[in-house]
Amino acid sequence: MSEKLVQSTGNGLHSSIPKLNVAVIGAGLVGSLAALNFARKGYEVDLYEYRQDIRTAELVQGRSINLALSQRGREALAEVGLEDEILSTAIPMRGRMLHDIKGNTSIVLYDPCTKQCLYSVGRKHLNEVLLNAGYTSKSLKPFQEDAEAKADLIVGCDGAFSAVRQQMIKNYGFNFSQEYIEHGYLELCIPAKNNEFQMPANYLHIWPRDTFMMIALPNQDKSFTVTLSMPFKVFSDIKTPKDLLEFFIKYYVDALPLLGEERLIKDFFKSKPQYLLSIKCNPYHYKSKAVLLGDAAHAMVPYYGQGMNAGMEDCSLLFSIINQTGITLDKALLQFTESRWRDAHAICDLAMYNYVEMRDLTKRVTFKCRKFLDTTLFRFFPTIWVPLYNSVSFTTMPYNKCIANRKWQDKILRNIFYAVLSGALVTGTALYVMNLQNFDR
Amino acid sequence: MSEKLVQSTGNGLHSSIPKLNVAVIGAGLVGSLAALNFARKGYEVDLYEYRQDIRTAELVQGRSINLALSQRGREALAEVGLEDEILSTAIPMRGRMLHDIKGNTSIVLYDPCTKQCLYSVGRKHLNEVLLNAGYTSKSLKPFQEDAEAKADLIVGCDGAFSAVRQQMIKNYGFNFSQEYIEHGYLELCIPAKNNEFQMPANYLHIWPRDTFMMIALPNQDKSFTVTLSMPFKVFSDIKTPKDLLEFFIKYYVDALPLLGEERLIKDFFKSKPQYLLSIKCNPYHYKSKAVLLGDAAHAMVPYYGQGMNAGMEDCSLLFSIINQTGITLDKALLQFTESRWRDAHAICDLAMYNYVEMRDLTKRVTFKCRKFLDTTLFRFFPTIWVPLYNSVSFTTMPYNKCIANRKWQDKILRNIFYAVLSGALVTGTALYVMNLQNFDR
Repeated sequence: MSEKLVQSTGNGLHSSIPKLNVAVIGAGLVGSLAALNFARKGYEVDLYEYRQDIRTAELVQGRSINLALSQRGREALAEVGLEDEILSTAIPMRGRMLHDIKGNTSIVLYDPCTKQCLYSVGRKHLNEVLLNAGYTSKSLKPFQEDAEAKADLIVGCDGAFSAVRQQMIKNYGFNFSQEYIEHGYLELCIPAKNNEFQMPANYLHIWPRDTFMMIALPNQDKSFTVTLSMPFKVFSDIKTPKDLLEFFIKYYVDALPLLGEERLIKDFFKSKPQYLLSIKCNPYHYKSKAVLLGDAAHAMVPYYGQGMNAGMEDCSLLFSIINQTGITLDKALLQFTESRWRDAHAICDLAMYNYVEMRDLTKRVTFKCRKFLDTTLFRFFPTIWVPLYNSVSFTTMPYNKCIANRKWQDKILRNIFYAVLSGALVTGTALYVMNLQNFDR
Repeated sequence: MSEKLVQSTGNGLHSSIPKLNVAVIGAGLVGSLAALNFARKGYEVDLYEYRQDIRTAELVQGRSINLALSQRGREALAEVGLEDEILSTAIPMRGRMLHDIKGNTSIVLYDPCTKQCLYSVGRKHLNEVLLNAGYTSKSLKPFQEDAEAKADLIVGCDGAFSAVRQQMIKNYGFNFSQEYIEHGYLELCIPAKNNEFQMPANYLHIWPRDTFMMIALPNQDKSFTVTLSMPFKVFSDIKTPKDLLEFFIKYYVDALPLLGEERLIKDFFKSKPQYLLSIKCNPYHYKSKAVLLGDAAHAMVPYYGQGMNAGMEDCSLLFSIINQTGITLDKALLQFTESRWRDAHAICDLAMYNYVEMRDLTKRVTFKCRKFLDTTLFRFFPTIWVPLYNSVSFTTMPYNKCIANRKWQDKILRNIFYAVLSGALVTGTALYVMNLQNFDR
């Protein structure tokens, strides 16, 4: 890494970070977006990728092939002028369609008031659009373990098992945790039938089953990508096609004919369930030399649909800081860490929590009551009472603030509950006493 | 690593783990103890160390030069027949001697009932005794990054920054966290004077100062090793000898003449404060091929004096499992992980908590009351009411059980408190009413 000093030119009009050589490691969604941002600002950018160029590659097993794009990702795309292009082919999902164990469905809209929704986008398509905006296949550099390269700034966008982070972890004061969950996931497919979707397309489909669940997101080609999440133990107990079909008849009876028995058996047994992990660290930067973005900084379990969105928001935040007048790169990176780590830790925790909500709570009456209360209050006070899911998915409110908001709402609802209860008690007692007096007369 | 299979001979009489080649990485306290255990059981053991042999080395800056040996370490030493040799030169510490800001001292015995105590031992001496029991300087193998070696089992005793763990961290399902605290430490020295200790020798001396503290342990040569623990910010605010002396006059007035101004200034400014971190992971093993012991598995902040003791206890546990009849090595290592990780995580947390207790709570009245209650109950029910500190330091009760015990004791004391309060209230009311009646007459 070059030891070239980064100094403020302090002209007070423009960012005083001189145009440096930037090496972006990883040409995934966050890496290609970060590279595009740096390039648009006039930096010399080298984008490195150790996999094959996604534009010429077959789909890689084990990386979900569609994703839920929400507000944070949309704004980051808008900043590089790509939001419209992406949304034009994305499939809006207006709410959750819940499938119960008998195959009955019910709908919970994400936002009945302002009609905001998630967008199902293909990972490959999105990545291609981002790469095409700045890179030909030729300009993408291969990233190899023993290769040497020089850069003023290394931007680690190399995912949950980041090689850049692997170097930073040795630094004193670098806090880090990786936590695997005891559940794995496996992707299946509900194909199109007669060139039509086999289920309503504009929903995120969920089959909540307490300790495990299945979800499905619509694809452009009218298929659904289905993700089966459950404890590794449950996966390994399914040893034969017969076990598998019995399992699906018991738990996912309505999905079985859509998946198709033959295809299901093939898909299920051709690959092993994938691990899921949560990664937190702090700081995200090393002096003015390196910074981590996206999964490299904060991998999370996929249950809030915020992994990609949070990674793209990293870019928004980083460049809003770098664009400040008079800031030096070392200060900018420090400020990025300081203004980001609490929010990133918060969304990692929320994602972990949402797994419980999705597979279990969505079925419960208390959850539905709360959802109703939240929606009603949101309708009357749309700027004040933004429910947690909506603030996370449909605003760019800092994640930590979303949680603080929720706590404040919990407190109010609790107080209202007690007030109503006390009121009822007082009224009840008063009526009873009056009744007694009437009786006395 | 050799791929030789480890198979049970299943004779049902002896451990069925065949005698393998074992590579113990790290010849520190835990590594040399582990190597000794393996060697005594007839294994082929290679002990690797990347530092110079401690027997021929000068003291290494930044590793504390004396340590508090307690029950768990003692038992592990007894198992290899070395406890008596170590205790014969160790200095018993019967309690904490607290130094207040004015220089007044008070004593809190660890165990006024059964008179158990901690033993201050020199790291170098202890390590030498352990090495001499099995290894000449020649038989110790150098451990180099690029060297190749073969072994059936790798035992990682290579400390908080373990190279063995660095390989295991890449495995799916390996949970890991490293957490630095915002306090650093620096070692100072209170030398002997006229060949005598300058303070009472049989205590662990503590200068609690809320957000920071200083402690001192006695050495064989009648000096004390003093450890100054405080936020890095406070360290860095002390820029000149004048700052330093003012700081000591303000906070450690009684220690200043014992440390000696000139020596203090020299010791303080010659080295930087050291970082402290807590490391947790799970599992500790990889199949039948590798296992982590000591700091490599669970580094902790030094404030419970359990780092070495827990590491030595790892050896006791591992060999008690390996000694089971009919157990295979892969099962033994799995069992080691499963029966150890919760306790190791617990002592890491306790050590973090004890930093607060030592620097702050020891001064408080509530702490002293609790200590008095604990001691009194312990005196009357020595097998039932073992206070937390005593169960951790003077028994081999699993650390997690020690915490569960404490919670149970907290609950009882809380209930007693409420009962006494209610009793007092009832009695008071009764007396008041009787008084009223007397008044009526």
